[in-house]
This record gives sequence, structure tokens and C-alpha cells, in this order.
Amino acid sequence: MALERLELLSEHGCFGGVQRFYKHFSVDEIGLPMRFALYLPPQALAGQQVPLLTYLAGLTCTEETATMKAGAQRVAAALGLALLFPDTSPRSTGLDGEDHHWDFGVGAGFYLDATEHPWAGHWRMESYLIQELIPGVAAEFGLDAQRLGITGHSMGGHGALTLALRHPGLFRSVSAFAPICAPTRCPWGHKAFLGYLGQDQSTWAAHDASALMAAQTAAPFPAGILIDQGLADKFLAEQLYPEAFEAACAQAGQPLTLRRHAGYDHGYYFISSFIEDHLRHHAQAL
Amino acid sequence: MALERLELLSEHGCFGGVQRFYKHFSVDEIGLPMRFALYLPPQALAGQQVPLLTYLAGLTCTEETATMKAGAQRVAAALGLALLFPDTSPRSTGLDGEDHHWDFGVGAGFYLDATEHPWAGHWRMESYLIQELIPGVAAEFGLDAQRLGITGHSMGGHGALTLALRHPGLFRSVSAFAPICAPTRCPWGHKAFLGYLGQDQSTWAAHDASALMAAQTAAPFPAGILIDQGLADKFLAEQLYPEAFEAACAQAGQPLTLRRHAGYDHGYYFISSFIEDHLRHHAQAL
Repeated sequence: MALERLELLSEHGCFGGVQRFYKHFSVDEIGLPMRFALYLPPQALAGQQVPLLTYLAGLTCTEETATMKAGAQRVAAALGLALLFPDTSPRSTGLDGEDHHWDFGVGAGFYLDATEHPWAGHWRMESYLIQELIPGVAAEFGLDAQRLGITGHSMGGHGALTLALRHPGLFRSVSAFAPICAPTRCPWGHKAFLGYLGQDQSTWAAHDASALMAAQTAAPFPAGILIDQGLADKFLAEQLYPEAFEAACAQAGQPLTLRRHAGYDHGYYFISSFIEDHLRHHAQAL
Repeated sequence: MALERLELLSEHGCFGGVQRFYKHFSVDEIGLPMRFALYLPPQALAGQQVPLLTYLAGLTCTEETATMKAGAQRVAAALGLALLFPDTSPRSTGLDGEDHHWDFGVGAGFYLDATEHPWAGHWRMESYLIQELIPGVAAEFGLDAQRLGITGHSMGGHGALTLALRHPGLFRSVSAFAPICAPTRCPWGHKAFLGYLGQDQSTWAAHDASALMAAQTAAPFPAGILIDQGLADKFLAEQLYPEAFEAACAQAGQPLTLRRHAGYDHGYYFISSFIEDHLRHHAQAL
């Protein structure tokens, strides 16, 4: 499971480890060059096989956003976690309209495999992450592919929760920041699912974290799921629906720590304030 | 010393405090609207009079750069420090050529008062900071104007060192990341000083940290100055001259901790790795 045409774009010393940016060619899934960022903590540079936490970013973001803004490397260095930051969609596909919307197309892959024309050709972010990037990165850099965690923000929180639930046993730990918890009910999700999955809404629930959780017959993450949500988040009421995921977890018997924080909004000042708790949550499980 | 037409642009909860962005009109010095960012730690929100650390950013940066990338708020919250992030120059002055160069004009104020036409009208960053912004912010937000520290990066490191040395007794603590230590000897400094201060190089030394330090007859900061420098910094050899400042400190009897770090470059992955040490250095003196 090698990453094809892997190219190191830049490398930066960071908390005793290295923050790297790579380009590779996604042969099997996207069919185009893709970028990702990888933080290797000092333990990995010293030859230790460390666990890998994948961070999925939100709408309009790239592989660079959280590397610059989340402040995660400090904690990853302390805990001995490698951090993988994928991009949020294919880019430069040549498809008409790919960049007409900030919440659909480029920068808005929603971490699923599109089934609708013309998106189905390249927009295969779920298979790209699960089949190609995460195992490829683990193999290429000698990381422990048995100790995987996943987290993310907003659209990436939706990605983290749905991928963790859709691939039982793959990720040992999951958390999210201000995730889109019920995309079948909110405008962002409707637009994305209509475009990528089509008008038959019966296919949508399979990519809705709350619906997926409600369908569980036993807690998929007995050690608990951690979610942080700001109460000054302007997207909270219309787009995020944490209460739907909370209800689904209660129904499924899934332990959930859902923290609501007064005064915090949807951005990286919020994320950076709580990133340490998330990395510790993952390190404990990994 | 009120800040004129002060306008809150945005506010973000961050580590129990607030990261705010403001606009005001610099009546006395710049003669134009200016922006700044301010982090108030939880202690300040609780009514405690906290010290103020000013962070001066580098070429091309704005008041937002370090707020997003340096990871300083976490430590400032723990230590009870307010953080002021000024912009790096006047903007939208209408002067022909103000944005023709990335290392001169907009984004490149060099923290001095220009004497040359046409820059002398608006490019008064030193007086703006010392006479207007820092005392104005301290007064407006109830911060302790007797406990001021200053730090910065690259051009902002030059700013921190020179302003600390040019205004004895104003700042109790000073530090810098990869500062331009001897602008009279390097291309960035030559270009800026020629443009802002003119061809008479006798005026330049008053804005050169190494020259200023060499002229001291006693250590201006007996508790020590902290400088971090990456050895993978591509600007190190041609632009920064830390060895010149080191020699000047030795000559003046000024205690200096100059740390050279293998594998670290000129960017914010470097700064974020060591920001905690800097804030602790300042907190100890403040």
C-alpha cells in the first residue's frame, strides 16, 4: 500500500518533531494529485512506532489550516502521536462548477464517495482516506496501523464521526469539534448530499452521524466519544445539531462527553483552546 | 491617552480569555485608521490588573498573524499576561509605491519613524507604538502600564530590541525570535533605512540593535535578554546577524541567552515551539 509519486514539499522543525507537507498521486481513488500534512513527533524520529491521529478539517480549509492554527503539535510531541492532516477535497479536477460554491465541491468533499455525475469520478474522499491515505501513510512512515484515531472540525467532525461509525474496528478513538452531527437535517448537509449522493434520500442516512449512531445495537466506542461545542458558534442552531447526536448516543448506550462552552465560536481560537483535551482523549485509547 | 474611534471588530473566546480585534484612528502619529489585536487572559476579565506583552510581527504580517499561528494565548492565560499584536505598518496611505515591495512600505514599517519624503507623513510606527498604542491600550483596558514587556519576530525582533533599547525603563523585559540584529549590515535593513531614513547612514545606527547595545555603558536588562534562532532559517546568514548582537551584549556586559536550534526555520512552527519559554521569561520579569 505505497503512496504513489510521494513528494516532500516542505519540512519544518516543530516541538522537537517535524511538520511536513507532502504531495502524492491518488491512483486508485481520486485519480489526481493530492496533498496532505504530517506531523511526526520526536518519538517517531527516534524510531519508535507511534499511533496515528487523523484530523479532518472543515469547509474551505486545506491540509495546512489546522497545522498552522490548532496548536496540536505541542501536545502530540508530548504524547508521542503522529498527526495526519488530509486535504478537504480533490482540487483542479477540471469539472465545471467545482469551485462555484464555498460549501460544495472544492474544499467541501464531506468525506464520502459521491455517486452522482459528475462528482463520482474524483470525489471519493471516504475511500481515499480509508483505503489509500491512512494505511499508506502508516506504512510509509512506520506508524502503528493498529492504533488509529480520528478527529475533526465541523465538516471534518462529521467526517470523523461517520468514518469511525462506518468502519467498525478501524479507529480506536474518535472525537470532534463542533461537528455537523445531522447532515440530513441541515442546509450544508442537504446541499452536499443532494449533489454528491442524489435525490434518493434513503442513501443519506448512511452518512449521518446521528442516524448511524441511532442504528447501533451496542456502544461502538465503550471508552467514550468526546465532542466540544462553542455556544457562541453562529452555525450551531442551523447546521450542527449536537443534541441529535447526543440523543442517538443515549439511545445506543454510547458514552458521550459533549461539552458546551459559553463564549466560544466556530473557529480555531475555540479549537486551540481544547485541542489538548482531545489529543489526551485519543492518546489514552491508543 | 484614549484610543480614538476605537471599534471592536471581532471577539473570540480563547483559553478562558478573549482574543479581540480592534480598529482605531491614530490621530497623533499615523493619521490613519490602524488595526490591532489584543488577547485578554481570564485574570484580566476577572478584574485583575495584568501586565502587557507586546508582540511585533515580521515582514508581510498583520496584527492577525501571530494570534493565529504562535500559540501564545494558552501560555498567556496560564501566566496572566495580556498580549498586544500591532499591525506592521500603516495601510492604504494612498502613497504611490506603498505596496510595490514585500519588504518595504505596507507590511514593512520597521518600527521606526521615517524622516524621508513621502514616508515621513504616515510611517511613524515607533511613535505610534510608544506614544499612542501601548499606553492607549493599557489605559483603555485597565492593564498595568508599569509592567510592559516586548518581543517580536524577524523585523519585529528588530523592533522589540531597538524599541527596548531606545526607550530605557519603558519595558521591563525583552526577547526576540530570529531578529534582524544588525539592519545596517543586511539587505533588508539597507533597503528600509535608505527609504525611510535617507542616505545619511549616520542616522541608521540609532535603529540598529547591535549598534545600540554596543553603545551601552551598563547592562540595560540585568535579568537577561532571550533570543531564539533556528539554524535551518534561510535568512540567517544574509539578514539576521545574531552574532553581532551577541558580541555587542558581551561588550556591554548584557546577559544574553541566545539559543541556536538545529532543524528550525524562520516560520511559525519555530516560533510556536518556543513561545512558552518567551512568555515565561517575560512573566518572570513582569
